[in-house]
Amino acid sequence: MSRIILSLSGGMDSATLLGVALSEGNDVSAVGFTYGSKHNPYENKASQALAGFYHVPYELLDLSGVMAAFKSDLLRTGGEIPEGHYEEESMSRTVVPGRNLIFISVLAGVAWSKEATEVWVGIHSGDHAIYPDCRPAFYYSMDTALRRGTDERVVLKAPFLHENKTSIIKMGHAIGVPYQLTRTCYKDQPIACGKCGSCQERLEAFKANGVEDPVEYESRVILPRT
Amino acid sequence: MSRIILSLSGGMDSATLLGVALSEGNDVSAVGFTYGSKHNPYENKASQALAGFYHVPYELLDLSGVMAAFKSDLLRTGGEIPEGHYEEESMSRTVVPGRNLIFISVLAGVAWSKEATEVWVGIHSGDHAIYPDCRPAFYYSMDTALRRGTDERVVLKAPFLHENKTSIIKMGHAIGVPYQLTRTCYKDQPIACGKCGSCQERLEAFKANGVEDPVEYESRVILPRT
Repeated sequence: MSRIILSLSGGMDSATLLGVALSEGNDVSAVGFTYGSKHNPYENKASQALAGFYHVPYELLDLSGVMAAFKSDLLRTGGEIPEGHYEEESMSRTVVPGRNLIFISVLAGVAWSKEATEVWVGIHSGDHAIYPDCRPAFYYSMDTALRRGTDERVVLKAPFLHENKTSIIKMGHAIGVPYQLTRTCYKDQPIACGKCGSCQERLEAFKANGVEDPVEYESRVILPRT
Repeated sequence: MSRIILSLSGGMDSATLLGVALSEGNDVSAVGFTYGSKHNPYENKASQALAGFYHVPYELLDLSGVMAAFKSDLLRTGGEIPEGHYEEESMSRTVVPGRNLIFISVLAGVAWSKEATEVWVGIHSGDHAIYPDCRPAFYYSMDTALRRGTDERVVLKAPFLHENKTSIIKMGHAIGVPYQLTRTCYKDQPIACGKCGSCQERLEAFKANGVEDPVEYESRVILPRT
């Protein structure tokens, strides 16, 4: 049993991560972030609902002032959310500079303050293409930085580092993760668009599992890869 | 010539760092942080004055909400600032969990967004005793995490990593750093107390240089080391 600070975005990956952490009998506190993204209000509502479902403490931390001048189409200050697949060049415009680097650092401070020993994040192989701060090479160096920066009080865990969304959903179904409560779409609208890279990746992963995605979509058409 | 995002706390180390960065002909933007420390209003005033003196862009980022629940006597939410020398057990109560880890991560995001390629921080050997996230082992792993987390866009530089306050002041005097504008004291009062670990270390370093510290103090007595 470990005391864990878990990064809960409200998406399907972190929802599954929370389910896994609890199924292993850990003591988990969830933290979400407001940082100025277009889908922030919807994903924060989802993370709050997930924390409620699992009866874990939940805290929402506000980085929107700090990240207000950051350049990314994911943010309200940026351009339109592109449609298509994650790996495409256009999707790299949705990368938020240093987002995970910053989130993980803050979570390490929270963990130290709360005497938790582990920070858990839901990064996975589907993120590797466009997000440098989700890749294994980053993970290993960041874990080292956390250990050294906290005098070995806090370590970084990324149980899905070598998983993909398809295998994550498979794990989640086995332990009853409530995917109907999650939010994945990047767009600033209550109903998932189905067309952004984030929606497309999720639709593909549910299809690969032979399961209907329980959230509502404007469109469920999986676009051809160019 | 590099484009640099420099962490400017308003203390004598980061003031010297700014002087050094500019003396080398770099393009420097300074960033300060509000994070709920007792001396924050005074050090932010100092960092603003220093940026004005050197005519560099200055931005103040607010992490006080994010760090509100962090445990440290340096923060308004914590206990009294202890008096004595830095290396003493009591001073470790002023450590803010993950402070540099968080500051550096945010600065990396700022750097990426502004197309700067280096983050500069004024950590030095005097910090090593109580601050794990100022030690060389942390620095090297954090530099690696930044490089990997930003796809090699941003590196971390700590030119004073193996210096101490005495050698920093020596460098600063050679290039005319305006130490009268700096703020080092940890206490919540406009005039430096002279008794906290931060003041004591500074008084010792000026004395070792045979120079009068130009800022005002309540007391300039250097306490014996126990």
